[in-house]
Amino acid sequence: MEGAVVASVRPPRGFRDFTPEVMILRKKLISRLESVFRRYGYDPIDTPAVEYWETLAGKYGEEAETRLIWRFTDPWSGREYALRYDLTVPLARFIANHRDVPMPFKRYHIGPVWRHEEPQRGRYREFYQCDADIVGSPYPEADAEVIDLTVDAIRELGFEDGFKVRVNDRRLLAGVFEEELGLTGETLIKVYRAVDKLDKIGEEGVRGELEKLGLPREKVDAIMEFTRLRGDPGELLSWMESRYGSNPKVREAVEHLGEVMELVTFKDRVVLDFSLVRGLDYYTGPILEAVFDDVRIGSVAGGGRYDNLIGIFIGQDIPATGVSIGIERIIDAGLELGIFKLDEKTYTQVFVVVMDRSVYKYAWRVAHELRRGGLNVKIDLSRASHRKQREKARKAGIPILAFVGPAEAERGTVTLYSTRTGERVEVALGEAARRAFSLLI
Amino acid sequence: MEGAVVASVRPPRGFRDFTPEVMILRKKLISRLESVFRRYGYDPIDTPAVEYWETLAGKYGEEAETRLIWRFTDPWSGREYALRYDLTVPLARFIANHRDVPMPFKRYHIGPVWRHEEPQRGRYREFYQCDADIVGSPYPEADAEVIDLTVDAIRELGFEDGFKVRVNDRRLLAGVFEEELGLTGETLIKVYRAVDKLDKIGEEGVRGELEKLGLPREKVDAIMEFTRLRGDPGELLSWMESRYGSNPKVREAVEHLGEVMELVTFKDRVVLDFSLVRGLDYYTGPILEAVFDDVRIGSVAGGGRYDNLIGIFIGQDIPATGVSIGIERIIDAGLELGIFKLDEKTYTQVFVVVMDRSVYKYAWRVAHELRRGGLNVKIDLSRASHRKQREKARKAGIPILAFVGPAEAERGTVTLYSTRTGERVEVALGEAARRAFSLLI
Repeated sequence: MEGAVVASVRPPRGFRDFTPEVMILRKKLISRLESVFRRYGYDPIDTPAVEYWETLAGKYGEEAETRLIWRFTDPWSGREYALRYDLTVPLARFIANHRDVPMPFKRYHIGPVWRHEEPQRGRYREFYQCDADIVGSPYPEADAEVIDLTVDAIRELGFEDGFKVRVNDRRLLAGVFEEELGLTGETLIKVYRAVDKLDKIGEEGVRGELEKLGLPREKVDAIMEFTRLRGDPGELLSWMESRYGSNPKVREAVEHLGEVMELVTFKDRVVLDFSLVRGLDYYTGPILEAVFDDVRIGSVAGGGRYDNLIGIFIGQDIPATGVSIGIERIIDAGLELGIFKLDEKTYTQVFVVVMDRSVYKYAWRVAHELRRGGLNVKIDLSRASHRKQREKARKAGIPILAFVGPAEAERGTVTLYSTRTGERVEVALGEAARRAFSLLI
Repeated sequence: MEGAVVASVRPPRGFRDFTPEVMILRKKLISRLESVFRRYGYDPIDTPAVEYWETLAGKYGEEAETRLIWRFTDPWSGREYALRYDLTVPLARFIANHRDVPMPFKRYHIGPVWRHEEPQRGRYREFYQCDADIVGSPYPEADAEVIDLTVDAIRELGFEDGFKVRVNDRRLLAGVFEEELGLTGETLIKVYRAVDKLDKIGEEGVRGELEKLGLPREKVDAIMEFTRLRGDPGELLSWMESRYGSNPKVREAVEHLGEVMELVTFKDRVVLDFSLVRGLDYYTGPILEAVFDDVRIGSVAGGGRYDNLIGIFIGQDIPATGVSIGIERIIDAGLELGIFKLDEKTYTQVFVVVMDRSVYKYAWRVAHELRRGGLNVKIDLSRASHRKQREKARKAGIPILAFVGPAEAERGTVTLYSTRTGERVEVALGEAARRAFSLLI
């Protein structure tokens, strides 16, 4: 083999290895999320990790475009590729590529995305997204379903209380900022970006950024007043109607959000919050974010309506709305709050302890029979002493030991031992799986 | 939004989108494989899709190195990266990066890998690998476990019969080709490569390639005679012992494989096949491949022992052996043989048919209650006629319709209808989930 030098042993900066104890937790949580997605009638799709660059280009805004997308040229074909940046633009391309899927099309998609971020606590260059989207319905009931699904998903992950779903509507922002305050083009985008930082830099910080844009004092005041508003959706929508009701965009949004709130099952979770902007360019209607009350970790879910994105691919708009559950941040938060623990180190339920090398072939048969009975079984593969085997099983937290010695081999039995209860029983091989299961309960 | 031109709608060449019906099959099969891996005592890990180029460099052989690895330079840092090419080299790096994992370390890893292949039928640029490996045991019992696991996995996927596991040992090849026939260096590698093509180009083809290397006739004859040998491991190992038993590598391999075969549970599946070479550079001992008898699709699983690979990362060898189950080829073969069908289009079990817009809020509650009861439920989101809703549910193959009209809303009930049996029953909302489940059985 060439290059027999000691190679780098670390994953690339911003990337992670996952050990079994972390994977067992991740798989449990992702499987719960999948159950929720299925309960709401969503089915899975998958799209490639690699897309042509032009598929992603022009969809996410300037920062992603110039800095955050992992983009590379194939040296053989000269073609430009990119690693997928989220699961939403690939969905739009998927819909364009599969015009025959029945509408509304409700899909979930769980998989990694890649962003060329500066790595820091809780921010990785490769992380999982868990998305559920509805394609083909322009109606408030679709947005209401997305809110209910978001609440249910976070609850199912173990957070009964202590979180809120913040909701806003891009049309409210457009109605007030563009049409009422006369902000347009580059200035408008910079205003959005400043407001988007409210959580990070606070009111004074945002005010400072707005003043730097050269906005007159009364506009800055109006923006700050507007973004300060948050609370019960019913009350705030009435206020918007009375204040900006003559604006058609505002009227449309107020009506739409009113219908959404009529339907939402988990109303007490929802806060209308006019400071909510969302970073991505493609949103056109209701937008949402879920945040924990007590963990300053940013939003743990985010989404909204994007009625024009698919149209870029097929030349004809198809309405769509959805949410992305931020499983990575939820894991970090759950570990911080002690809701999740990394205490499960293995799926293995039985360790076959070989008491003497002379009975190894019989022990192999015992392992086979237990596996055939549906149990997860390890057998010694290191020719270790039986003391060492027991020690390994104990450290791994394996709940059952299956002792196989010359006596058991002669009698065609195995001695099962529960490390939790101390119960010990010698049983015939044909009974072993059933008895092992009963020791697990 | 910029760039509002119609963008490319296809995934990149050699990459695939997966629709729900394909994903439902893939998830079912992958979940079965996971069960087998767990039954044998393997736990999951994950590693990044992206590795530093130097992590992969020099591990796979010339073709991978120069052509097949997706390799790119980060324009910001100038650092060279690569998409992972298999899951074995990342495992070796993982072990080096986590020196504290208990040995033997048995891990499974299921995930995509990327190869810059020329796309063709059954060959993709992104495909899943499903690997199970044992790190830390040099003993035949580890290799025997890998064979048993391979047979069990393929059976669990639905192939009771009709496949074989071909086994060989790199030390037999080295003993005969290097030490007995005096082939070395570049010539030896070219001989391996020629023999590796036996399935594709046949005996005459291989003979032709060997002659082109300038080998004398008697060496070509000896190679061909050797690679023609396949059959019962016991008989062939005895023959090897009698013929080449004085060669230490051959003797070591014969003894090791003899112990492997002593243990293997599924002996009738195993064929010793001296033409088996395996393409990758890193194997050092037993190698294996699973092939179907009746589908000419190449190997559907492959693996072997690689006792020196981890040493490249830590400067000290750790023995390892394992197998990669070729889920993509197995899916292709299973569909071809009619063992798998793409007949499940959705996980959804109930479609709530809204008979009249006036009862939509009540229908929403019905959907919520059914979901709370654990059912997978869709509700109309398109304001379609009830005829159209039923039609959609039928086409999707959803087994239960839940009719909600003004009568049901008034009585606090829902009318459940099984599309399979025609059974129809009106039940109180609180009973709906339980009754729906009974209709599913």
